Amino acid sequence: MSNIVELLNWRYATKKMNAAEQVPADKLEIILEAIRLSASSSGLQPYQVLVITDPAIKQQIRAVAWDQSQVTDCSHLLVFAAWDNYTAERINMMFDLVNEQRGFKNEGWEAYRQKLLAYYPQRPAEQNFEHAARQAYIGLGSALLAAAEQQVDATPMEGFEPEKVDQILGLAASGLKSVLLLPLGYRAAEGDWLVNLKKVRRAKDEFVSYR
Amino acid sequence: MSNIVELLNWRYATKKMNAAEQVPADKLEIILEAIRLSASSSGLQPYQVLVITDPAIKQQIRAVAWDQSQVTDCSHLLVFAAWDNYTAERINMMFDLVNEQRGFKNEGWEAYRQKLLAYYPQRPAEQNFEHAARQAYIGLGSALLAAAEQQVDATPMEGFEPEKVDQILGLAASGLKSVLLLPLGYRAAEGDWLVNLKKVRRAKDEFVSYR
Repeated sequence: MSNIVELLNWRYATKKMNAAEQVPADKLEIILEAIRLSASSSGLQPYQVLVITDPAIKQQIRAVAWDQSQVTDCSHLLVFAAWDNYTAERINMMFDLVNEQRGFKNEGWEAYRQKLLAYYPQRPAEQNFEHAARQAYIGLGSALLAAAEQQVDATPMEGFEPEKVDQILGLAASGLKSVLLLPLGYRAAEGDWLVNLKKVRRAKDEFVSYR
Repeated sequence: MSNIVELLNWRYATKKMNAAEQVPADKLEIILEAIRLSASSSGLQPYQVLVITDPAIKQQIRAVAWDQSQVTDCSHLLVFAAWDNYTAERINMMFDLVNEQRGFKNEGWEAYRQKLLAYYPQRPAEQNFEHAARQAYIGLGSALLAAAEQQVDATPMEGFEPEKVDQILGLAASGLKSVLLLPLGYRAAEGDWLVNLKKVRRAKDEFVSYR
């Protein structure tokens, strides 16, 4: 028995949302908290989440997201935006925060900080961004489960022009680049071609192997 | 109230595992099922999961994974290995499976297949691999929650030499490249420097913004 497996079976990528129904604030908070608590490489949390409710901004994003209706019909549009690079400043910010929160400096942890400082900032920004972007997908995994737990529908989307979303939201000024959209809301089942179709995954034998 | 948030607070990246304690088969199955059911771009599930229990293989992997003890002390070592490219064969395999499972051909779905066939196989393999690798991180997000639900400890790891793990497991022959290790097992709390330390995340105001 697994509630997690049940939630994964419940959720699906909602194709049509009911523009009239809002996600209550307490449910939104739980979804955001699940993202915030998610694992990330070295605990750097190298991304931000933007919560868009302004109809004009949603409309602008929809225009550069293949005109997908969920972008405007959703209650809240989450934008996952990854760090465009790992800088010494960002690495130090997170290591300092850890020390501050734990109330002490740990020798092993400080050695690890130096290791990252010697490694990440020297790599090409594009390579660091790719690495940061991957971490946002762990947060997406948590968000989809938290949304399902709250019976909130969600549609993970990569189908948009990231540079244009970056421009609309002015992300470059914050050193961020958009990687994922996640409309949150409620299905409009009568207009959703996917809602009643079987979820299809490769059989376990085709997906898992043992050594 | 959210069980998902509780599970995220419970879990941590276990630094020392008890080599004597095994994860029961039913718990392992639930964790694998959570990965298998996870969302992925266009539903392609562009990765495989390998479950390693052979002590000799674990030892070989540990030697190319910064000698991290969890690689050998874990009960089961999961290796997430992403497709090295999106080929027409792979895309058709998943679209055919969807048609077969749903029992009909859908015009919109077939148009979408043609769109992917015209797009992905023409892109550089490296770009497709990066995209596939990101999807594995959604599965990791689910795996960490399913493991926590089953009170199984887990340590997500990127700290290894992927080319060497690929060689050890002969992944190239299957068109796969390793992207993540996930040792599953049970904490050996007395040897784990992290177990009693506070989980540190940026405050919500620093992680989320609203428009």
